[in-house]
Amino acid sequence: MATPQEIVTRMMELDKFSQWLGIEVLEARSGYSKLKMLVRDEMLNAFGIAHGGITFAFADSAFAFACNSLGKITVALDVSISFPHPVRAGDIIYAEAQQLNETSKTGLYIIEVKNEAGKLVALFKGTCFKTNRDLEIGM
Amino acid sequence: MATPQEIVTRMMELDKFSQWLGIEVLEARSGYSKLKMLVRDEMLNAFGIAHGGITFAFADSAFAFACNSLGKITVALDVSISFPHPVRAGDIIYAEAQQLNETSKTGLYIIEVKNEAGKLVALFKGTCFKTNRDLEIGM
Amino acid sequence: MATPQEIVTRMMELDKFSQWLGIEVLEARSGYSKLKMLVRDEMLNAFGIAHGGITFAFADSAFAFACNSLGKITVALDVSISFPHPVRAGDIIYAEAQQLNETSKTGLYIIEVKNEAGKLVALFKGTCFKTNRDLEIGM
Amino acid sequence: MATPQEIVTRMMELDKFSQWLGIEVLEARSGYSKLKMLVRDEMLNAFGIAHGGITFAFADSAFAFACNSLGKITVALDVSISFPHPVRAGDIIYAEAQQLNETSKTGLYIIEVKNEAGKLVALFKGTCFKTNRDLEIGM
Repeated sequence: MATPQEIVTRMMELDKFSQWLGIEVLEARSGYSKLKMLVRDEMLNAFGIAHGGITFAFADSAFAFACNSLGKITVALDVSISFPHPVRAGDIIYAEAQQLNETSKTGLYIIEVKNEAGKLVALFKGTCFKTNRDLEIGM
Repeated sequence: MATPQEIVTRMMELDKFSQWLGIEVLEARSGYSKLKMLVRDEMLNAFGIAHGGITFAFADSAFAFACNSLGKITVALDVSISFPHPVRAGDIIYAEAQQLNETSKTGLYIIEVKNEAGKLVALFKGTCFKTNRDLEIGM
Repeated sequence: MATPQEIVTRMMELDKFSQWLGIEVLEARSGYSKLKMLVRDEMLNAFGIAHGGITFAFADSAFAFACNSLGKITVALDVSISFPHPVRAGDIIYAEAQQLNETSKTGLYIIEVKNEAGKLVALFKGTCFKTNRDLEIGM
Repeated sequence: MATPQEIVTRMMELDKFSQWLGIEVLEARSGYSKLKMLVRDEMLNAFGIAHGGITFAFADSAFAFACNSLGKITVALDVSISFPHPVRAGDIIYAEAQQLNETSKTGLYIIEVKNEAGKLVALFKGTCFKTNRDLEIGM
C-alpha cells in the first residue's frame, strides 16, 4: 500500500490546477500536509491583491492532500474560510493542514495559511467525506 | 458616479485571475451579479473534477462584483461554502450573487453556483466588510 | 412508517431543550420544517439582546426536524451562521428549514430565521450526516 | 478602565442565558477566555444528547467574553461550528477562546470545546465586529 508521501506525490502529478498554482509539497504524513507557493501577478484581483480563490485553492489542496493521504478517496463537503490579512504578488505562502478529528465516514481539518513573516492570511476549517473507494491513482 | 455595470466591467478588466478563469459577466446590479464560465482541463484536481478552488473563486468573483457595485471598496471577511455536486471539465457554470443584508460596515450575501442542468454545485455564504474608501478604479 | 409530521411531533416530545425554548411546530414535511418561538428575558445576553446560542438553537431545531423527517437518524456535522440583525425579548421569531441537496449519506440545508416584521435575523447553512439507523423514537 | 477580568465578571452578572447554562468563568484575559459548564438533562435533544444550541451557546459565550474583554462593545457577525463528538448529560465541558487576528473593526477567534477526557466536541470559528461604543456595563 502506498505511503502518504507517495499518495500526495501522485496526486500532485495528476492535479493540473495545483500545478498551475505552482504548489510545492514540503511534507506529507497521515492526516497532515505542508505546502508552499509563490503568488504571481496573474493570481491577483481588481484591487491588486491575491484573489480569494487563490488562497482558498491553496488551502484546499493542503486539505485534499492531508485527507487523502489516509488511503480512501475523500472529498470536501463543507468549508469555512476567514481572510484576516491580504496576500500580495511576490508573497511566498505556506499552508499547513492538520486533522482534528476522524470518524468512519468524515474528517475535520484546520488549515492555516501564513506568509513569510508568519502572519496568518487565511484560516480554513474543512469537513470531508470519505468514500469507500480505495485511492488507486495509477500507483 | 459609476453605475454598477460600469464598476463591474472595470473590475473585470483589472482582475487578472477572473480573466484567467474566463468569467463572463451576464448581469450586474446594485448588490447583485450573475456570471458564467466554462470549466477547462487545467482547472481539474487529481480526481479529474474541478478543483474546489475553481468553484470557490468563481463564486468569490460574483460576491466581489455584487459587493463592490455599491461604490465602496469592500473585501471578503468570512465565507462558508458547501459542495453538493461535482463540477466537470466542459461544464458551463453560472454564479448568482444576492445581497441578503447590509449594515453601514458589513454585508451578507448568498451565492449559488449551478451547472447547465440547473443542479446546485456550490452554495457560498459570504460576509464582507466595507471600507470608507470610494471605489475609483480609473473610471 | 411514520409520517414527517408524526416524526417531528415525537421528536418535539422528547427534545427537552426545544421545549424549554418554547418551540411550536407550524409545519413539517419531508426535508422541510417551519417553527415559531417567543424570545423571553431569560434568553438574553449581557447586552440585553438574545444570546447567539438561542437563535442558533432555534435554527438548529428546525434543521434537525427537517433532516430527521426523512426517517433516518441524522446529525449536524457542520454549520455556518450569520447574524444580520439583533433579536430582542418579546420578539416572535420564525425558522424555516429547506433541503437544498441530499446524497446517500449527507444533506445540505438552509435555515432562515426572521422576526415578525419579516426581517432576516439569522441565516444558517447546515450539513448533516445520515446514519444507517432508522428513527424509532417510540412510535 | 476596567480589566478584562472585571468586564467578564460584570458581563456574566448581566447575561441571563449564560447564567441558565451554569457557566463558570475560569480565566479572562485580553482576547482570551476559558469557561466551564456541566451539561444537564434539560439541555438534551430528542436523541438524548446535548442540543447543538447548547454547545454553540457555550462556545459563543466564550467568544463574547474574549472579544469584549478588549473594552469595546463587540458583536458576533459570522460563525462556523463543527461537531466532531456528541456531548452527554453529566459531561463537564470546557471552552477556550483565543484571538487569532484583530483589525480596527473586526476580530477572528477560534474556540475549542472539549470534554473532561480532553476530546474535542466542538470547533467554533468566529468573526466579530467592534462597534465604536465603549463597554460600560454599570462599572
